Amino acid sequence: MSSLQAQRAVRGRFLDIQHTVSQASDIAPAIRYIEDGLILLNAGKISWFGTWEKGKDLLSADTPFEHYPDKLIVPGFIDTHIHFPQTEMVGAYGEQLLEWLNSYTFPTELQFKDKAYADKIAQFFVQQLLKNGTTTALVFCSVHTESVDALFEAAEQQQMRLIAGKVMMDRHAPDELCDTAESSYHDSKALIEKWHGKGRNLYAITPRFAPTSTPEQLQKAGQLKAEYPDVYVHTHLSENKNEIAWVKALFPEQKGYLDVYHHYGLTGERSVFAHCVHLEDAEWDCMHATHSAIAFCPTSNLFLGSGLFPLKKTWEKQVKVGLGTDIGAGTSFNQLQTLNEAYKVQQLQGDKLSAFESLYHATLGGAKALDLDDKLGNFNLGKEADFIVLDLKATALQALRQERAKGIEDALFALMTMGDDRNIHTTYIYGDPVYVKY
Amino acid sequence: MSSLQAQRAVRGRFLDIQHTVSQASDIAPAIRYIEDGLILLNAGKISWFGTWEKGKDLLSADTPFEHYPDKLIVPGFIDTHIHFPQTEMVGAYGEQLLEWLNSYTFPTELQFKDKAYADKIAQFFVQQLLKNGTTTALVFCSVHTESVDALFEAAEQQQMRLIAGKVMMDRHAPDELCDTAESSYHDSKALIEKWHGKGRNLYAITPRFAPTSTPEQLQKAGQLKAEYPDVYVHTHLSENKNEIAWVKALFPEQKGYLDVYHHYGLTGERSVFAHCVHLEDAEWDCMHATHSAIAFCPTSNLFLGSGLFPLKKTWEKQVKVGLGTDIGAGTSFNQLQTLNEAYKVQQLQGDKLSAFESLYHATLGGAKALDLDDKLGNFNLGKEADFIVLDLKATALQALRQERAKGIEDALFALMTMGDDRNIHTTYIYGDPVYVKY
Repeated sequence: MSSLQAQRAVRGRFLDIQHTVSQASDIAPAIRYIEDGLILLNAGKISWFGTWEKGKDLLSADTPFEHYPDKLIVPGFIDTHIHFPQTEMVGAYGEQLLEWLNSYTFPTELQFKDKAYADKIAQFFVQQLLKNGTTTALVFCSVHTESVDALFEAAEQQQMRLIAGKVMMDRHAPDELCDTAESSYHDSKALIEKWHGKGRNLYAITPRFAPTSTPEQLQKAGQLKAEYPDVYVHTHLSENKNEIAWVKALFPEQKGYLDVYHHYGLTGERSVFAHCVHLEDAEWDCMHATHSAIAFCPTSNLFLGSGLFPLKKTWEKQVKVGLGTDIGAGTSFNQLQTLNEAYKVQQLQGDKLSAFESLYHATLGGAKALDLDDKLGNFNLGKEADFIVLDLKATALQALRQERAKGIEDALFALMTMGDDRNIHTTYIYGDPVYVKY
Repeated sequence: MSSLQAQRAVRGRFLDIQHTVSQASDIAPAIRYIEDGLILLNAGKISWFGTWEKGKDLLSADTPFEHYPDKLIVPGFIDTHIHFPQTEMVGAYGEQLLEWLNSYTFPTELQFKDKAYADKIAQFFVQQLLKNGTTTALVFCSVHTESVDALFEAAEQQQMRLIAGKVMMDRHAPDELCDTAESSYHDSKALIEKWHGKGRNLYAITPRFAPTSTPEQLQKAGQLKAEYPDVYVHTHLSENKNEIAWVKALFPEQKGYLDVYHHYGLTGERSVFAHCVHLEDAEWDCMHATHSAIAFCPTSNLFLGSGLFPLKKTWEKQVKVGLGTDIGAGTSFNQLQTLNEAYKVQQLQGDKLSAFESLYHATLGGAKALDLDDKLGNFNLGKEADFIVLDLKATALQALRQERAKGIEDALFALMTMGDDRNIHTTYIYGDPVYVKY
């Protein structure tokens, strides 16, 4: 065989899911586990993937080559809901959603009008993502355009595929943190023109949530979405019962919380709604009918006492779902720790969340929720080469447990129960190792 | 001032709670926070504690001395419920309590009839406790006397105060894992004579839980307790709804689950019941009346989907409570991670768990639950010198958050939300540093 053009090759133990599925039971048959595999990377993409035995002759002698014989390589984690200006406020005590916003979040986000400050935290935030094996995220910035510039600039340095947007918020927040319907439209539009599709960056129209936008602002958000249909919509939905009651009081003319967004044209294939803990049946149907997606954020739902997300219902109702850390209401940047708590949230409801289903939500399922499953989420040919090398034995306790693991699914489940950032050995973005532990 | 006899002195920032309380609101006034403090240690005990300013002249020049200017020193963590033979099985997938026991636990515990194996895991277990800042624990061994010997021998090497006992189990388990009413009595009695009060070791009569003991065995357990009233009783209670229904079917003549133990004389000042997630009102009253204690095990209750423990009720009903990791159904040896989830369990019930109350449960309150608050739990004069030096900034994210902390309570809460074993810098047992990170 003649050698393939490759800028880099990686050999090791690979695990991914070959295609998206419509039922949880279809995940296990779609698992692809190669104990001694090889991946070739070219121009940021996967140019070949298979067993070492089949692939070794494709390698030319001068291709940069890494071998991870005792590690596990999986697609990069995808975080479908996170707030970059809240990086510094994880662990804010004692409140549920609405009081937490007023007491902690708004004062913190005020700092992001300062571009230098936003730059500093954006750099830190991107490093935290990489250190935790998160290669793509859908990100809330603050209301300030500076925060969006800061984040996209930081992402661009790493060639990361991030989706982000400026918060739109014109009421029920401190004056200094409010824009107007008009200014939010123009600022968002300018940011879309500047960033959407530039390199790997993508833009999301980002009204914080219905209570902090006037009908006029939501109408403007819908207008933007109509003008730029391939731009994302990213907001919050049905996280907390007091929040839901408030939305119903603010928008009595709509049928419910989701109907507010739907009315203004904000549902759809590239719309992601964080939380959805307390959706009503008609709302599940609307999510399905509009191909909208949910970001399930277990550590946040527990930390704020929001409730237990019924993950099983996403399969029953055929609604796309991804996993979100929701920093800073969430308590960890790490998707392994997020999956630990996702499992517990399901256990409390009498449902089982398998390791393979967990992997699906954290990788290919998340990519599908972001309408990026043609580009991300597994090792299929032509996909963008974002993946992570996991050390399954990062602590002595993990090593003891892993020595007793009964196969790859058990090993993966143990990792998801005990893992944290220490298990991320190397993070590859667009074909390059951009983070290496120690 | 003349110098005091001291084998060691430690200077740093100290935080503890000065006395036990009967209401959560009394904890904050009992907090003792010394920014620049000094502790003198002699013969395993605290011989002096106060500010550096007042204490520095008591030090003689040749006293070994450590200074931790940028750390936080708190009493050692107390784990009121943990299974040492389950160290290797954290993260066993997919079951709730009863199936989990049969599928995973019993096969794992079978290995502990081999003394060499038990020794190996006992050494590992004790190291895990120390690495996680746990200085005292109430521990389930396996049914084998070898497991008890192994654990006490390992604890003795470190001079740790551990309470442990042999499982009593004579039905509803694999034959190889069952003793008999008679043999369990004699074996436990011999272990009590051998270990209880030897060095810092204390013994606990340990029927696994009502369903795996015949009435005859429970009667024998009660007989032992009557013969050795200062020995502990350690078992499980009301963890899972199917378990409760099973107990009611097995013991129709008793008024409820707790009444089974009460009937056989197993409640009392040194009786600790793990879980108590679903206690009935009469059971709360019996716990109070008998001065029995609860071990609250949040990571385990979530992992097995057992339910949400109503911590607030322990104050209302005046029932003693400590914190338990419940390894291997729990998911971490670490009390900081356990407190992270304790907070979430309370948030889901609309209750707030403050950082100071959390510290209380993990230290002095745990000591009280174990009837050891005269010996452990804070820095009072004459107490045994078990304490830990915490690094509040063990990760970059923690450092960012701690730089913004608004005082010690906020700093402590951030630690409890984001912390893990990396935050344990040094663990002192009986006056000596027995674990130092790296």
